[in-house]
Amino acid sequence: MRIKCIVSYDGTNFYGFQRQIKTRTVQGEIESALKTIHNKCITIHGSGRTDAGVHAINQVFHFDSNLNLLAQNWKKAINSLVPKDIYIKDVQIVDEDFHSRFSAKKKEYHYKMFLGDYDPHNCNYYYFPTYKLNLDNMIEGSKYLIGTHDFTSFCANKEDKNKVKTIESIDFIRKGDEVVIKFLGTGFLRYMVRIITGTLIDVGRGKRNPEEIKEILEQKNRLKTGTLAEPQGLYLFMVYY
Amino acid sequence: MRIKCIVSYDGTNFYGFQRQIKTRTVQGEIESALKTIHNKCITIHGSGRTDAGVHAINQVFHFDSNLNLLAQNWKKAINSLVPKDIYIKDVQIVDEDFHSRFSAKKKEYHYKMFLGDYDPHNCNYYYFPTYKLNLDNMIEGSKYLIGTHDFTSFCANKEDKNKVKTIESIDFIRKGDEVVIKFLGTGFLRYMVRIITGTLIDVGRGKRNPEEIKEILEQKNRLKTGTLAEPQGLYLFMVYY
Repeated sequence: MRIKCIVSYDGTNFYGFQRQIKTRTVQGEIESALKTIHNKCITIHGSGRTDAGVHAINQVFHFDSNLNLLAQNWKKAINSLVPKDIYIKDVQIVDEDFHSRFSAKKKEYHYKMFLGDYDPHNCNYYYFPTYKLNLDNMIEGSKYLIGTHDFTSFCANKEDKNKVKTIESIDFIRKGDEVVIKFLGTGFLRYMVRIITGTLIDVGRGKRNPEEIKEILEQKNRLKTGTLAEPQGLYLFMVYY
Repeated sequence: MRIKCIVSYDGTNFYGFQRQIKTRTVQGEIESALKTIHNKCITIHGSGRTDAGVHAINQVFHFDSNLNLLAQNWKKAINSLVPKDIYIKDVQIVDEDFHSRFSAKKKEYHYKMFLGDYDPHNCNYYYFPTYKLNLDNMIEGSKYLIGTHDFTSFCANKEDKNKVKTIESIDFIRKGDEVVIKFLGTGFLRYMVRIITGTLIDVGRGKRNPEEIKEILEQKNRLKTGTLAEPQGLYLFMVYY
């Protein structure tokens, strides 16, 4: 039986999603819960990794089990065993041809910034810029990234062979002092959203012109992009199948 | 020179406000910053303590200094030295007869509950009840606490000699699934807000009748009240002078 789970987690105290020896990870905690349930090791397959400090609202993973539980009982059982910074929101029994990573068609990431006064209660959940940002320039710069491009300049992962990805939309949603940048695309390379956001922040603070984004994209060189935006503002919002 | 500061802090990773040996406290971190600025130990005086895990939006403290800095420079200097879960929101140079504790006239605490689905990103900032709460019954029960009473049943502190306090108002503010209980009073005994909230939660879930609050108050016996409400929902919202 293949089980699909939708999970939300607070990335603050995790060294990312992917299992690692001797560090606290989301995968490690969930597999530990599943081991208790099955009395043997169970591997989960996430839709992709998230980095240390990065959050998820609706991350997806699947695993195979020989136990015959109802979906709502899987939800209760796993939630009773995972720590409080992980929460299984939904469980579905799916066909065996479903794969959380390979079946994914689109992903949506949100990057949350707060332009008002610093708030220590949100220090792990927003990026607080220390300079004024020109949002219009950031929006203008983001337009060059929409579409299908080779995103070599905007990724840090030498493992990914195919650097061509499609970004469908980048929307800036402002509500008071909160700005959420919503990225929708067919897939994202390692660090891609954070490098794009970091580079757009450079545009926003006037370190770069919006048109430079186009040049950087064409140069296919990571050295041309800015620093990584801080992880705590980033949320894996949705995986579409 | 007497300096009055308004400070916000995320109580999650503190063992409360008050300085303690070998544990991380808000007072300890702020005094450590002031020691760096003054090159000698400086004691701060808070408007009162908060317990481990309890937050503050506008806690007040004061200290005396022989340094002659402008208010905005005090703010910058201290904020540059405290950890990210503490933030000095405002600094004022005040008269020497101001005392953050003894001059306080009223305090306002907020207790935040979330009645919707559990959200791991808010697990340190809300109480998530695991049973249905009848808010109307909680509101009815809370009415018996308004006014000047001996709150012996609602405090855990044997140190406080005077158990008579005045609660001006207890307001329930509901916005969607969020419920904030706002307590305004002349002062609160140790654990008082959390014992009142815990007891009102007992009323909300049907373990007690609203009228029992009146009896409990008259019995002046801590054994008659419920368990402490969890600390992470509690915020010291304002100190009035």
